[in-house]
Amino acid sequence: MENGKSHILVCCSFRTTGVPQGFCHKKGSADLLGYLESQLTDHGLDDVQVSSTGCLKVCERGPAMVVYPEGIWYGGVATEEDVDAILDAMERGEIAEEYRLT
Amino acid sequence: MENGKSHILVCCSFRTTGVPQGFCHKKGSADLLGYLESQLTDHGLDDVQVSSTGCLKVCERGPAMVVYPEGIWYGGVATEEDVDAILDAMERGEIAEEYRLT
Repeated sequence: MENGKSHILVCCSFRTTGVPQGFCHKKGSADLLGYLESQLTDHGLDDVQVSSTGCLKVCERGPAMVVYPEGIWYGGVATEEDVDAILDAMERGEIAEEYRLT
Repeated sequence: MENGKSHILVCCSFRTTGVPQGFCHKKGSADLLGYLESQLTDHGLDDVQVSSTGCLKVCERGPAMVVYPEGIWYGGVATEEDVDAILDAMERGEIAEEYRLT
């Protein structure tokens, strides 16, 4: 745990039993999770924690992730380029508005 | 998504593949997740979102959960009574200090 540090939660659509079946998982969110983690250092974001989650309930706008404690929700994060754009924004202390869910 | 609303993340120890194998899951966190969701209304916390997560990396102090955007981490949440104590505190706008991870 890292009080006050950013924590990125990536929807992987797990059911309670752990079975990954939902929209975000089918769109490859588990692969993107690995890619995201691999890119943190390059973006100076080593202190950011990353976790997978069960369904975040924004399926129609997924693949989705949320950054806390800022409370910034992102959708349509489907490719490595999408992940790059979000991490680029975080590195600048900004929000990737083009992916933001409001 | 509920901007600004509380979001409880409950560690269910999912691996990236979705297989639940870690400490929190073995301690019954998936059952507690269902219990927690069932108790929200009674605590006036209907607007709180609840999600399961993969390993939150505080295994030695689990079963664990974290409440965002407040950024309050809890550990040792092993029984329904533990969940009740945390929800009671949230209902009062307080923190259940006896479970808090710092």
